[in-house]
This record gives sequence, C-alpha cells and structure tokens, in this order.
Amino acid sequence: KLPGSAKPLVGPALETVFEELGKIQNSKERAAKLFQWFISPISAKKFFSEIWEKKPALIRRHNPDYYKGLFSTAEFDRILRDNDVQYGVNLDVTSYSNGERETHNPPGRALPFNVWDFYKNGCSLRMLNPQAFSVTVWNVLSILQEQFGSMAGANVYLTPADTQGFAPHYDDIEAFVVQLEGKKHWRVYNPRTKEEVLPQVSSPNFSQDEIGEPILEVVLEAGDLLYFPRGFIHQGDCLSDTHSLHITISSFQKNSWGDLLDKLLPAALQIAIEEDVEFRQGLPLDYLSYMGVQNSEKDDPRRTDFTEKLQGLIKKLAKFAPVDAAVDQKAKDFLHDCLPPVLTEEEKATSVFGVPTRWEDGDARDVAVQINGKTKIRLLRKCVARLCSEGEAVILYHTVENSRVYHKEEPKFFEVDSEHTDSVEFLIHSYPTYVTVESLPCEIPDDKISIAELLFEKGLLLTKNPLPSS
Amino acid sequence: KLPGSAKPLVGPALETVFEELGKIQNSKERAAKLFQWFISPISAKKFFSEIWEKKPALIRRHNPDYYKGLFSTAEFDRILRDNDVQYGVNLDVTSYSNGERETHNPPGRALPFNVWDFYKNGCSLRMLNPQAFSVTVWNVLSILQEQFGSMAGANVYLTPADTQGFAPHYDDIEAFVVQLEGKKHWRVYNPRTKEEVLPQVSSPNFSQDEIGEPILEVVLEAGDLLYFPRGFIHQGDCLSDTHSLHITISSFQKNSWGDLLDKLLPAALQIAIEEDVEFRQGLPLDYLSYMGVQNSEKDDPRRTDFTEKLQGLIKKLAKFAPVDAAVDQKAKDFLHDCLPPVLTEEEKATSVFGVPTRWEDGDARDVAVQINGKTKIRLLRKCVARLCSEGEAVILYHTVENSRVYHKEEPKFFEVDSEHTDSVEFLIHSYPTYVTVESLPCEIPDDKISIAELLFEKGLLLTKNPLPSS
Amino acid sequence: KLPGSAKPLVGPALETVFEELGKIQNSKERAAKLFQWFISPISAKKFFSEIWEKKPALIRRHNPDYYKGLFSTAEFDRILRDNDVQYGVNLDVTSYSNGERETHNPPGRALPFNVWDFYKNGCSLRMLNPQAFSVTVWNVLSILQEQFGSMAGANVYLTPADTQGFAPHYDDIEAFVVQLEGKKHWRVYNPRTKEEVLPQVSSPNFSQDEIGEPILEVVLEAGDLLYFPRGFIHQGDCLSDTHSLHITISSFQKNSWGDLLDKLLPAALQIAIEEDVEFRQGLPLDYLSYMGVQNSEKDDPRRTDFTEKLQGLIKKLAKFAPVDAAVDQKAKDFLHDCLPPVLTEEEKATSVFGVPTRWEDGDARDVAVQINGKTKIRLLRKCVARLCSEGEAVILYHTVENSRVYHKEEPKFFEVDSEHTDSVEFLIHSYPTYVTVESLPCEIPDDKISIAELLFEKGLLLTKNPLPSS
Amino acid sequence: KLPGSAKPLVGPALETVFEELGKIQNSKERAAKLFQWFISPISAKKFFSEIWEKKPALIRRHNPDYYKGLFSTAEFDRILRDNDVQYGVNLDVTSYSNGERETHNPPGRALPFNVWDFYKNGCSLRMLNPQAFSVTVWNVLSILQEQFGSMAGANVYLTPADTQGFAPHYDDIEAFVVQLEGKKHWRVYNPRTKEEVLPQVSSPNFSQDEIGEPILEVVLEAGDLLYFPRGFIHQGDCLSDTHSLHITISSFQKNSWGDLLDKLLPAALQIAIEEDVEFRQGLPLDYLSYMGVQNSEKDDPRRTDFTEKLQGLIKKLAKFAPVDAAVDQKAKDFLHDCLPPVLTEEEKATSVFGVPTRWEDGDARDVAVQINGKTKIRLLRKCVARLCSEGEAVILYHTVENSRVYHKEEPKFFEVDSEHTDSVEFLIHSYPTYVTVESLPCEIPDDKISIAELLFEKGLLLTKNPLPSS
Repeated sequence: KLPGSAKPLVGPALETVFEELGKIQNSKERAAKLFQWFISPISAKKFFSEIWEKKPALIRRHNPDYYKGLFSTAEFDRILRDNDVQYGVNLDVTSYSNGERETHNPPGRALPFNVWDFYKNGCSLRMLNPQAFSVTVWNVLSILQEQFGSMAGANVYLTPADTQGFAPHYDDIEAFVVQLEGKKHWRVYNPRTKEEVLPQVSSPNFSQDEIGEPILEVVLEAGDLLYFPRGFIHQGDCLSDTHSLHITISSFQKNSWGDLLDKLLPAALQIAIEEDVEFRQGLPLDYLSYMGVQNSEKDDPRRTDFTEKLQGLIKKLAKFAPVDAAVDQKAKDFLHDCLPPVLTEEEKATSVFGVPTRWEDGDARDVAVQINGKTKIRLLRKCVARLCSEGEAVILYHTVENSRVYHKEEPKFFEVDSEHTDSVEFLIHSYPTYVTVESLPCEIPDDKISIAELLFEKGLLLTKNPLPSS
Repeated sequence: KLPGSAKPLVGPALETVFEELGKIQNSKERAAKLFQWFISPISAKKFFSEIWEKKPALIRRHNPDYYKGLFSTAEFDRILRDNDVQYGVNLDVTSYSNGERETHNPPGRALPFNVWDFYKNGCSLRMLNPQAFSVTVWNVLSILQEQFGSMAGANVYLTPADTQGFAPHYDDIEAFVVQLEGKKHWRVYNPRTKEEVLPQVSSPNFSQDEIGEPILEVVLEAGDLLYFPRGFIHQGDCLSDTHSLHITISSFQKNSWGDLLDKLLPAALQIAIEEDVEFRQGLPLDYLSYMGVQNSEKDDPRRTDFTEKLQGLIKKLAKFAPVDAAVDQKAKDFLHDCLPPVLTEEEKATSVFGVPTRWEDGDARDVAVQINGKTKIRLLRKCVARLCSEGEAVILYHTVENSRVYHKEEPKFFEVDSEHTDSVEFLIHSYPTYVTVESLPCEIPDDKISIAELLFEKGLLLTKNPLPSS
Repeated sequence: KLPGSAKPLVGPALETVFEELGKIQNSKERAAKLFQWFISPISAKKFFSEIWEKKPALIRRHNPDYYKGLFSTAEFDRILRDNDVQYGVNLDVTSYSNGERETHNPPGRALPFNVWDFYKNGCSLRMLNPQAFSVTVWNVLSILQEQFGSMAGANVYLTPADTQGFAPHYDDIEAFVVQLEGKKHWRVYNPRTKEEVLPQVSSPNFSQDEIGEPILEVVLEAGDLLYFPRGFIHQGDCLSDTHSLHITISSFQKNSWGDLLDKLLPAALQIAIEEDVEFRQGLPLDYLSYMGVQNSEKDDPRRTDFTEKLQGLIKKLAKFAPVDAAVDQKAKDFLHDCLPPVLTEEEKATSVFGVPTRWEDGDARDVAVQINGKTKIRLLRKCVARLCSEGEAVILYHTVENSRVYHKEEPKFFEVDSEHTDSVEFLIHSYPTYVTVESLPCEIPDDKISIAELLFEKGLLLTKNPLPSS
Repeated sequence: KLPGSAKPLVGPALETVFEELGKIQNSKERAAKLFQWFISPISAKKFFSEIWEKKPALIRRHNPDYYKGLFSTAEFDRILRDNDVQYGVNLDVTSYSNGERETHNPPGRALPFNVWDFYKNGCSLRMLNPQAFSVTVWNVLSILQEQFGSMAGANVYLTPADTQGFAPHYDDIEAFVVQLEGKKHWRVYNPRTKEEVLPQVSSPNFSQDEIGEPILEVVLEAGDLLYFPRGFIHQGDCLSDTHSLHITISSFQKNSWGDLLDKLLPAALQIAIEEDVEFRQGLPLDYLSYMGVQNSEKDDPRRTDFTEKLQGLIKKLAKFAPVDAAVDQKAKDFLHDCLPPVLTEEEKATSVFGVPTRWEDGDARDVAVQINGKTKIRLLRKCVARLCSEGEAVILYHTVENSRVYHKEEPKFFEVDSEHTDSVEFLIHSYPTYVTVESLPCEIPDDKISIAELLFEKGLLLTKNPLPSS
C-alpha cells in the first residue's frame, strides 16, 4: 500500500520543468524526465517494475499547485470561447444518477452560454481532445508519447459538486488521473475475472451490484495522482462541497504482444509458405470427413494426427517470423497516431522554421542561405521519423505534419532514394549527436547536401547553429 | 518412368461406368470408383502414395475409345450452336508462335461461323467451363469433387495440326490431361527451384530458354492420360498430321496446409488473447528503439530476448488453435465451390424432384403425399451438406442450389433450429444408411417430421422408396 | 359498352397464326397481325382510336380454345419441374382474404412438392416472367414489343376456386388480361381522381371502401380478353366451381410524353446555354431578397418580372430542344428493355445461326463460305438495331444478345466506323427489302464486305438465300 | 474608354471604411458601401448598368495606399510562417515562359525557406484561399457576398519582376483585379466568339496566336482596379523593375439564369406530369420509326407534328414552374458556399459570444442570464439564414457554422417546429429592425422565448443591448 503522508510533496512548477526539459538534447531523456516529474516521488524504475499493468497507485501530495499550469477551468472556459468546440466531437455533457448514465449533447457548437448552463444543472463535462486546444497539453503528450512508445492521449473531466458523471466501468488503456482542481471521491475495483485482466476492449457501464467491493477508496485532491491499469473498474463522484477538475492521461491502447502478433502472423505464414514446401503440401484427401465441428466428437485417430500436424506447423512458423518487419508495421501505426512535436524557441531557431529567409522591404531576402558540408545537423526528435522497407522501396515515415486531431491527416511519408538511405540511417543512429553534412555516408558529395536539405525542408532536422542571414 | 506398352488397355465405356456408379449408394465410393477408372491401371492407393503432388505420370492405353463419351469436338460444335458462349468468358482463342503468346478474343458471343474460322487460321480454342454446357462433364466433376475434397474443374483444349496454343508455364493445380481426340506432343519439366515446388500461384509464360530440359517427352494419343503436379512446367503442341482435343481436369487449388493455417491463425490468436494474459501484456516501453528494420544490424541482447519472446508466443498459439472451426471455414468454401449434384433417375424418383405432386386435369394432384415416421431417409450425397457453428447459431451449408457456373450463386445455407440439430447430425453420420424418420433424435415427434420435410423439400434427402401417389 | 354475344368467335389457332406470321417479311407487320389476332374482332384502328388509354374493353369469345397454346397450367407444372424457379424472384405465393393481402414466399427454389401444396391451401400463384421459361410467351412478347414501340411484359396468374389472390389496385401499365383456363370474376373501377388518370406509378393496395362502384363487372371465361388502361382499379376473384389461369400482357410503362421530356429538357437547356447568351447572363444581384418561399407572400413587382423572365426562357427552350437525340435516348432504353428476337426456322437458316460452318469428321468444314458482293441481305427485324450518335461516335445498339430476363445483360452496342455508317443507315431504311452487298454506299468495295460480315456475324442480318456449303 | 487622369483619387483607408461599416445596421447596406469603396469613383449604379457582365473597366487612382491593409507581401510571408499552407491546396508555384505554362508544386507544407527560393528563381505564387488565413480578406469577402447574392472568392498573386506566371486564358467568374503592390502589365481581349461571351466554364491556356489583339493594355499600379467579365481573355506580366502583388476578387460562378433553370426544370416537369394528363399520355405507337437521328433526314409530316407537340409541352411547362422553390435550391447552395460572418466587437457583445456566462473563481457564473419577453432581437445579418420548405418540413439554413475553407463543412441547417415558423419569418422580414421577443407571432408565450433562445444560442441573433450579468 502506498503512503499518504501529511507532509506536502514539493516539486518544480510545470514552467520550470519545461525550461529544464528544453536543455535536454535527447527527446527520450526529456520524456523520461517529464514522466518522472508526473509520478514523483515514486521512481520510474520502481513504477514500471512493480505497478505498471499490475495494480493501482495513489500519490498524495498535499500540494494543490503541483500540476498547476497543466490545465484549468479558466482554460476550459477560454477554449469554449475561442474555438469551434463541437458537442459530441470535442465535448460530452453527461450525467449519472440513480444508476442511469445519460448523454445530453445537443447538435452544433458548444458555447459558454449553453455549456455552463448544463454544468449548473448538474451535468459533467468531458473534453475529448484537449491537446487540440491547449498547447501545454499538446506539448506534454507529445513528449510523453516517446516515453511510452505508444500514443499518449488525454481527456479532461469537470464535475459539479455532489454529482457523478459516469457509471462504473473499465477502460482499455493505462490511466493516469491527474487532479487539477477541487476534490473527487474515487473507488477502484479489481478486474472481475482472469479474462478481464489487461483487456483489449473497454467494458460497458456496470451497475453497482456487478462490481464487488473497491480495493482502493480515496478522496483525490488537487496535486494528487491516481494510476490504474486497464481492466480495473473505477468510478469517481464529487463531494457536496466542491467541484472537481482532472485530466486523465492515457496510453498503451492496443499495444500488447497480441497486437504485434496480429501484424506478425500473416507475414510469417506468407514467408513459411514461400520457403517451406511442407506448408504448400495438399491437405489429406478425406480430412473433411473426420475434421470439423460435426465430427468433433468422433473418436478417430486421424483427428489426432491432423491436429498434431497443424500444431507442428504453427510451432514451425516461429522460425519464419519477420519480427523486425512486423515491428515496423506497429511503428508506422505509432507514427501515424503521434502528436506532432512542439518546438522550443531554440529548436525553432535552428530548424526550417527559423531560417532568415523572408519577405522584407519589397523583396525575398536571405534566400541564398544554404546548408553546406560543414553544417552540423541532427534529427529533431528520436521518434520524429522512422525508416521502413516496403517491397523494394525504403520509406521514411514521420510525425511533423501530423495533426493535433487524431488521424485527421493520413500517414505522412516519403520514399528515400537508395543513394540517401545510409545517410538517413546514419542520422537516426547518431541521434542526439550533431554530425556534419560531409560526414554523411553518401558516395557523391552533392547527395549529402541534397538529403540534408530535403530533411531540413521537411522540418525533420535541426542545425547546431542557426543558419546565418547573408 | 512409367511403361508405355503396346497392348491396348481395355476398360468399361463411360456409359457403363456411370451405370455401375449409379448402383453404389455411397457417393464417396462412387467418387473413388470413377477416379480409379480415370487412372487405371495404376491403383489409386499407389497413385496417391507415390505420384500425387510428387511427379508426373503417363498412362498409355493404345485404346482411343477409353474416354469416349466424355467430350468431343462434335460436342464442342453443338455447344457453340446451342449456347450463349461468350468470348473471354467461356472461350479463349489463342496462339503461340515464334515465342509469342497471343489472345484473339473478339467481344460478344462465339458462334461457329467465327470460331471455326479462327481455328482454320491456326488458333487454339480453350473452353473455360465445359461443365456449364456438358452434362457429362458436370456429372464427372461433381462426382470427382468428393474424391478430392476440393473443387474439381476442367478446361477443354482444341488445337489445330502443326500449331501450339500456349507458352510453357506451370499451374497452381493438380492436372489430369485426358486425351480425347488426335495426338499432342507434350514436354514436362521439373520445377525450377525449391520455391516453385507445389506453388500457390501459377507462373507467367516462360520463354524456351528459361525452362531447361524436359523430364518427360511424349506424344499423347486418344485414350491416354498425363498427370503432373502443380509447379511442373509443361507445353504441348500438335503434330503436323492431326489436331488434338483434350480435357484437363484439375483440383487442389489453394488446398494446402498453409491455406488452412490462413483460416486458423487469426482465430487462434483471438482465442489466445482472450484466454492467456501473456498475449495481452504490453510491449516493452522502448522496443521501437532496438527492434525494426532500421535496427536490424544492431547487436543488442534485447533483440534476442524480444524475438524469443515472440517465438515463444507463436509456439504457445498451437494449443489455442480451433482446428475444427478452421476446417469448417475451409469446408464452407469447398461447398460454395462445389458443382451441384447430378441426380440419377433412381435418385430423382426418390427425391423431391420425383414426388407425384403435380398439376393434372385441371387440378393439383397428390398434394397430400407426406413423409411419415416410417419413411426411410438418407442424405443425397456424403458431401451435399455440412453442419457448422457460427456464434450461437448452427448453420447447414449445402450444394444443391449451387450453379454450374463458378460462384454464380452466393453460398447457400440455412439455420438449423436447436431442436433439429441432433437429427441433422444423425443423418450426416448415418450416411449412406437409410434411417426411419421416427428414429431421428428429436424430443418431440412432430419435430422429426418437420426436419425431414424441410431437408426433403430442399432436395437434400432421398427416401428409400418413392413417395406413393394417393 | 362492348357486346357479349353468345355466338362463338372463331379465329386461327396460335400455331396457325405463327405459321402465317413466319411468311410476313416485315416484323412491324407481323407485330400488327399478331396484335390484331389478340384483340379480334375489334380492329386495331378502332382500338387505338377509341379505347387505348381511355377505357376498359371486354371481348367475349365463347370459344375457350381461342388462346390455346399460349400457356397452360400443365406448362406451369413443367416449368416448376425443369427450371430453377425461385420464390420471390420468379414466383409469388399470395392470398387476399378478409381484406388482408399476404405474401407467403419461402426462400429458395419453388418445386412442385411445395408449390401445389400452397395452391391446395388456397394461395394464388403469380409467375413473374414466364417469357424466361416459355418459348411461346417469349416469342409473342418479342413480336408485340414492335407493335407497341415499348417493352411488352407478362405475368401469369393461377388462382384456386373460391379465392382471391390480390387486393384492389391500379397499375402503371396498359393491361391485356388473357383468360386461358377456368373463369374469373372481374370488377374494374374508374380512376378516382384526375391525377390518377394514366398514372406514372402503381397504387398501393386499396380497401374495398376506397374504390367506389365498378364500371365493369364480368365473369371472364377461357378465350375472353379484358383490357384496361393504367389507373383503372381492378380486382379478380374465382368462383366456387373452378380455378382460373390467365396471363396479363402489359406495355407502356414510363412511355409518356413526360418521360420523353425527362430526357429532352436537360439536353435542351444545355444547348440553350451554349447557344443563347440570355441563358448565360447573371441573375439579378438581389433576387434572393424577393424570391424564394420566405418571400412568396410579398407583393413586389420584381417578383412578377423575375417569374415572367424565367417563363419566357422556358418557352424559348422549345426551339433548342434536340428532339431526335432525346428520342434516341428513349430508343436506347427500349432496345435495352427488349426481349431478344425468336428466329423462325427460315430465319435461322439464312442467319449466322444457319451457316454450314461446322465441325465434322475431325475437321472444321465449310469455313470458306463467304459473303460476297452479290449476296442479298437485310436486317433481321425492323427494331433489332438502332443507330445513335454519341458525341463524335456513331453507335449501333441492338437486341440480339439481350437476355430473356429483364436487364440481366447490359445494353449491347458497338461503334460503327465512319466508313460504314451510311451503309448501316441504308440497311435500316431498306428494311424489309433485301439489298445486295455491292449496293451498300461505301466508297471502298472491301468496306461493303466487312460491314456486311460484321453485322452478319453479330446475328443482325439475314441473307436472302442460305450461304451455300462448299 | 475609362479615363486615367493624373490626379490622385483619394478615399478613406480600409480601417476607416470598416469602422463606418460597423455603424451600419443593415448588412446589405454595408455590402453596398464596401463595394462602392472598391469601385469608387464609378458609382455602383453606373457600374451595374453599363459595365458589369459587359466590358472591362479600369480605375486608375494614382494613389498606391488606396487598398492598403487589405493584403501585403509581408502578410504573405507571415501566413507561410504561422499556418499549415500546403502546396497544391493553398499555394501554387507557377511559371509561364516561352509559351509554356508550368506548375512546380512539391508535396507537403509550403515554408518560407522553399517558397521564397522558388520566387527568387522567377516563379509566380498564387495563394488560393487567402480568406482562410487573413481575417481582413475573410471579412471583406463575407461582406461582399451579400452584395453579389453569390459567393465571393479571392486569389492572391505574387509575381517577380520581369516574369509572367500564367498563360492567356479566360475565367468563369467576374473578376476584380486589385493591385496591392508594385506594377503589372495587363492585356485584356474580347471573347473570341458569341459562345465564349459569359461562358459557364473557364478556358484552357491559349497560345499568343489564338487570342487576337488586346482591347485594353495597361500597366496597373498599386491602388488601381481592373475589372473584366467572365469570358474576357487576359494576361499579366511584370515589368523589369518591380514585382507585383494583386488580389483578384471574384463572384458569379454558376449564377446565371441557366443555372437556375437547371434547378427549376426537373421540378416543373414533375409538377406538370402530376397535374396535367397531357404529360402522362403515351407516346405514339410508332414514333421510333420516324423520329431519332437515323430518321432525321426523312421528310415525314409526322416528324413536324411530333416536334411541335413536344415544343408545345415545353411551353406549357412554364405555367407549372415552381419558381420560389427553385430559387430556394439556389439559395441553399449559396448559403453553403458562404463564408461565415465576421462579427464586430459590438456585434459580439450582443450575441451569444458576448453573454457574461463564464467560469470564474471556481464556479460557473451568470448562467441565469435569460432572454425575456422585453428583450429586443434581430438577425445577425440579412443573409445569415434562410427558411426553405422541404416536403412537409420547414428548414432554416444558415451560415454561422460554415468554414473559412470552401465546403469544408456540410450545409448547416435545422428543422423549425411549426409553432415557430411564423416567428422566424417575422424576424427575417423585420431585419434590420429590432423587435421584442413578445412581439413574435407565436400563439403560446413560452414558444416565443424558446425560438428566440434557440436562434440566439446558434449565434443567429443579436440583442439590442448586451444581456446583463446578474
């Protein structure tokens, strides 16, 4: 059991955290540091070995300002005012009362005039993709996705005092409930069966008599964190004296070994069939007469032979499994799921967004600024791009043109010419170290410049120093 | 090498064969007997143990009438006259000359006026589904499909003297070349590589210098049979003194262990994920950093661990494999592929097609004829229907309403009510024995009558004796 | 009111009629003659001027054999036995009792065992496209379609004694009820409103109190004919002593001036816009402020101006109307709707179906038979083909490859090369006269042969004499 | 020919114009005033009677600052920096040199680093929907669309000195070329044929020898305006000493009488068929034998009768034309095409966007603010909403939720309950006068409040005074 001491747990403010993150060159390290701040004082090492995917964890901080700046009700109000927030798409209005869960979304845009009226009438508000409206949430999630190697998402929940917005249920994601304002009374329950441990899909709403006794009951206060794995049933309701605002950060949806096998098995079978004649040999002439459900109660030794033959072939499949290619399929999905990176000012200054090329005084200026052999370059992020093979072609998938709205853009990629492939791989493996353009492993010097320019133009590269104006 | 003796091999005429087949109650035995006639004097047992899927076989009979009645050029002419044979759909006009393979199909219907003109000009004719036009071919194939447990198809080839219609190639089916008229010079070549042994797909056309030396070269004469497995390259051309007519009977397209695994693996994974938490556990946080093609040359021990973990899971899959359900998927495809059965006169008389119910003298007659508890019944054929589970429902798939044209009809099936399931299974397992309706394992006597009537009405049942007129 | 005399009206038997029709060269005259036989003793001239589209007509013949050979219940039984008649597609089982109309179609094939059981239980049977199963009905309809210049269809109705199969309703076609066997009591009612005169769509089923009093009530007997235009409500029921079999021949579905205008108006507007700038001029800047439903009660003189301007443009459209092109659109639809022609033995002998080219004695024979300049040719039927312009191309639409099942085949056509266009037109206008191939208006003699061969090969031409065998 | 005097034409700055527009209550008057400013010193009355759709017009102002603030190259640069401008979607890179027109768009986002490089290399830049990126352009166009009663669009063109970006061509819209910076040499040519006057579709690119001699040749300078109707060929190229930036404002695409007839004719025919039996009567039996292209040269009096009959029916159509309903179809399209309105600060304060309802100090505040019977209301704009009938329902179409990107949103509408219809119509016709809620013509007082609240919540209403905070 985790301790709930009365001494406030202090930590750097979010603003300071971001400042420090900006100094870290390696985006993986940034991600680790940000995640550590989220779960402090538990160490990430301990968290991932003892808690992650295993059991709920509660971190009480007695420090209502710990997550300050991440999100607030004032920000919620501002977003409604300034953005085209659509009911049902970006915002849900819900209630849970007398065991009945209802959704009250009208059609069209959600404006404060309506939204706060619903709230005053006891409805809960769920903002479905705050990362599309809040740069801070976007930034946090785009960093954390590198920690998880899996998409990081978020919902914001605002609940009036003395109400509950949702019925008990479990989700298909790892959940980090970050209490931002007010308080919320939470109850967390064990998965009900072996099959509901780490489930692949979320549950329907449960009634109170289907879920047993909670294993954790707590009043979460601003600054506290509650984690629970997928499959743990949970419900939260507000006390009579205060509202609640929390953001739930989630990850690891469809990111199991089974999901990878789903990519891997068809490819493995394809290869096995191509390479091993045993997979291509015909089925026994008469197998339909002793196999199949209608024969399943027959006591026929051929049934055993047939089943064992198939099981043997399945086991043999293992050696044909194209593991790296299947991982690349998952990686491509991950890069499509990813939020685009948020650049720091320093990063902007040394990327394509910071080049002095501009219109000024009636003319295009500093167009001649060029990358040359001495220019030192690196990728923008560890996970900003990935090299995959597709048939004969080598494709670079990347995240820089993704949308802040989930899958609003198609996967972004371009083919890498064969003379550039080694250089791109070199850049990937050199990360986070800067290398000179002339050190790229292209045979022809001009190719070094051209692949560097291409990646720079796409926004995938940083230069060590800003490109000078002429 | 198979012998080519000069003594004629005599056998019963096709007509006699059919007569004898009609006396055999069990359709599987019929199929075996017909197949045995086709490959005589080789025994089926020897054929399937030593030749099938392994090597070509030649049967020389010195008996041009052996296959008489199966198909002829006169029948070809009659079909053109009486049926809407469409170029490109039912008939191909081809040539192969100076290494160039061409197709000469005009649009529209193929009439003798045109077709024989093409032929006179040296073109080969391939009739693509003679079973749609010839009852004999339909009958032969519909019987043989029970021998193979896999669709049996046929093409007819008519080639003018001194020409060749097709380039060397291999097919994706087991081929029985039945020489019907004239002679053809055949050359058969070994698969070129290990990967081309028992291939899943047919080859493109080869040039002469891609195929090496033939392992079998022979002039096939009327009454002879040539078999070769999928993957064996072949080409046939006509001698200068005579045309050639042959029918190629084929089977075992996509009927390998690999094809069954293609049905089995997704279902096995689904079950493994549901039942074994190991398949639902999350992937390692950082696997994307050491797995994937871009990391494939890294020397990282985590790569080995990761790969072994996946291989272990694949092996573990074997025990979750729902073999019978996957076989049923294949069986459903097979029943959809099947030709509908051709009924003998005796079968017609004791099926729904033979009941005396009719219009006569201004009134509907003998409508009252009914199946009762004493009526003895059995299924029409061993393979005419198959019981499969789909979710909660039990479905009976059947072939009686299939078309003579491949997949022209959707799969035919109906749901079997739970009170009838045991009776249908009983009928399937009792085949070919007749059982009384009252012996069906239904709890309520009326249910016995109703399932018997239903199956009878659909044409799936025979009665031991014709239903009497009143 | 039409007379119902007691003296039998005699006429030639159907067989004799067909024999005589075969002697008539012009298919339009054939059609007229067959139609005249159907409605005899009323003359076609009188029928079309006084009755057609105006009022019902009854022809009593006191001659039960008048239509003998057209269709019979024995034929109905034979069709069920020999053809794949599908419930719901080719056959409906219906009842109308106590004001309730029901359909009882089970799924699947309709076999006598079932069908006659339904009949014995009081159900009516409607065969939906007897032309697909009966060559006689096909022949009759394929001839009559040239009389109507519009598709001719048919349904067969078999009703048990003392029952009714359908509720009162009206149809969207001109109906000829031909009583074949037994008797039926018919009641026909006037269209209920001006809008229901010659309606474009069929009515729903009416209750008895919605339809008023019949204007015609009659017991139709075998050999009688009842005609009524679309929009006339009707119901028929059987007397207690006999069943009824009738065939309803129908035509003129969607064949009104309005249907032609539907093709014509978009094309007329397109041309007007291209040719007359008045149609291209912009709308008034502010028309949305005084036109539209929300302004329809405004008393604004600009409303009158605007409406009159539009009405003027509509009237002006008339002069841009591409009447012939629109008729061709209708004609194309008609040719697609048409049944394929049924050839007489004489026609077969002088068409592509009769050429001696054949397979015989091991070789293709009489392939050299050729059309030459002296060969006399004509089209097979007046309406078997039609020349239409489409953009730059000239297209010949034809009916010879149509299916006996409505729209089972796509429209059949081919492009006519420019050097052949005049010759095709010449053949169309020469019909039914034979012309020599050399008289075709092609500049180059070889083109004459090639267009004649093409049309002959497609089955569109007859030669005056059978092409000789060599 | 329009004069080009040397005296500067002075006018209010755009900022001042907007200020004054904000004081005008009636959006139609605003639109008229803004348009007048654009074409000053020509009066709108003179423009629309003498020039519009007739001939080009040139307004020389000798006042480079006249249109200042509308758009600039600095704004162009800023947009590239701050927005996801995509090549091919939002920006085209083009060149026209030696008679060859080329497009140079790479894939992906257009960043200054690339764009200005293209520019320096002599390429022209066309921004395709500046209204999506510039609030000023959005505002101008959203006002002008009420002047035209038709969508107003814009493209921005930036051309380097001494180059030309586009080949000569004509467009399908009325074009206002507003010179913003630098100079451009323009040549305008008459439509080449009667058919190309006011064309419905744009032309392909022409070569110089296809277009004849210009009727207008001029060097446009900043502050000048050039108008030409659709169909007038034009080309512009830069002088050697300066670049050019202009914005082309366009309207009246597919807004002709013919476009309205395209909506009107099918509906008119539908009504004529329903109401007038003459349209439902059958075509002559034999019309296919004398009408149609293959008979078009026949001299048959029936051809004249048939054609005159059809022409008579077309003329008769006029009286069935549902003009208001067809205008509503056009209106619905227009409202879908429209840009959403840009609200002034005053308008925001008295709309749903200005209500004090908000989150503050931990609670939702001023939620109780309500519209009551005394509240004075009006529509936001004359053209912001439109009432249309669809079958039985009354639908209100509106523009407030449209996107700044053309047709990115589906048409926006909601059904108006029958008890609210009169009130909505009353509000539409009362515009721009404020009316009290209690004056709305609803029978039940509560309905007055509810329709007012509904329209207010949707953003369609202004209140005379801001709703007070409690």
